[in-house]
Amino acid sequence: MWPANWQGMIAGDECPMCADMALPENPHSFWVAELPYSVVRLPRNQYMRGWTVVIFKRHACEMYELEPPELAGFWQDTAQVAQALNTIYRPVKINYGVFGNLCPHIHGHVLPQYDTDDPHKPINMHEQTVLWDPIEYERQIARLREALHVL
Amino acid sequence: MWPANWQGMIAGDECPMCADMALPENPHSFWVAELPYSVVRLPRNQYMRGWTVVIFKRHACEMYELEPPELAGFWQDTAQVAQALNTIYRPVKINYGVFGNLCPHIHGHVLPQYDTDDPHKPINMHEQTVLWDPIEYERQIARLREALHVL
Repeated sequence: MWPANWQGMIAGDECPMCADMALPENPHSFWVAELPYSVVRLPRNQYMRGWTVVIFKRHACEMYELEPPELAGFWQDTAQVAQALNTIYRPVKINYGVFGNLCPHIHGHVLPQYDTDDPHKPINMHEQTVLWDPIEYERQIARLREALHVL
Repeated sequence: MWPANWQGMIAGDECPMCADMALPENPHSFWVAELPYSVVRLPRNQYMRGWTVVIFKRHACEMYELEPPELAGFWQDTAQVAQALNTIYRPVKINYGVFGNLCPHIHGHVLPQYDTDDPHKPINMHEQTVLWDPIEYERQIARLREALHVL
């Protein structure tokens, strides 16, 4: 059930996120921006429009492993991404999740919720796969970078 | 679908969490401790053993509404709760979620995950209802307070 190389992933030696977070694109997502404590990426699967991921730069697994400035900085970055998504999409609410059951490297999911969404529906990234045309990813990345003031 | 009094809940005038977060018990949870920026509560529904909620003390809805010291402090409190749960339960992973679709007052769910849990299973607080005997809640609250060093 849990990944076979869990201990290696926890230790960081076998952490796939450490290996591919800086790539322009990887099987899961596209690079958007680097913030002080994190890398921002756009998942290919846009089943929730605007879903964005904020990956802590160094390897760590739980919130209490971070030094106070790191913890503060990671959430400042995440808040900045949420504000950017709010500017772009004007959702009803934004959800924030740090799970890591499949990859324990600290990364936050920022998920806008719209009035057409069922507010009772749990977050399930495997619910469906919605892929965009390449030009749509490029547009969204440009809009995010502009809203994040990293142009 | 979304709560009828959403605007009143967003503004804070009709926020049920502002109204009942300080009560020894309310329909959802029991009071555990007050930390610098939050109130810690134990949900009655312990369908995920150890599920604990960290409620930001003042009314706010999104991460980017907080001043930097508030954002840092809320997550420092949440990290402290996660560390306490790790000490008590030794889970495989801890999940952190700030959703707020039913009540937009900022509150974090801290959910330990065990090796007997399916790591792919999405977080769904309405999945099932597991209630404990009153003495079990008291024991858990005492253990949490001890691990949080608020005795």
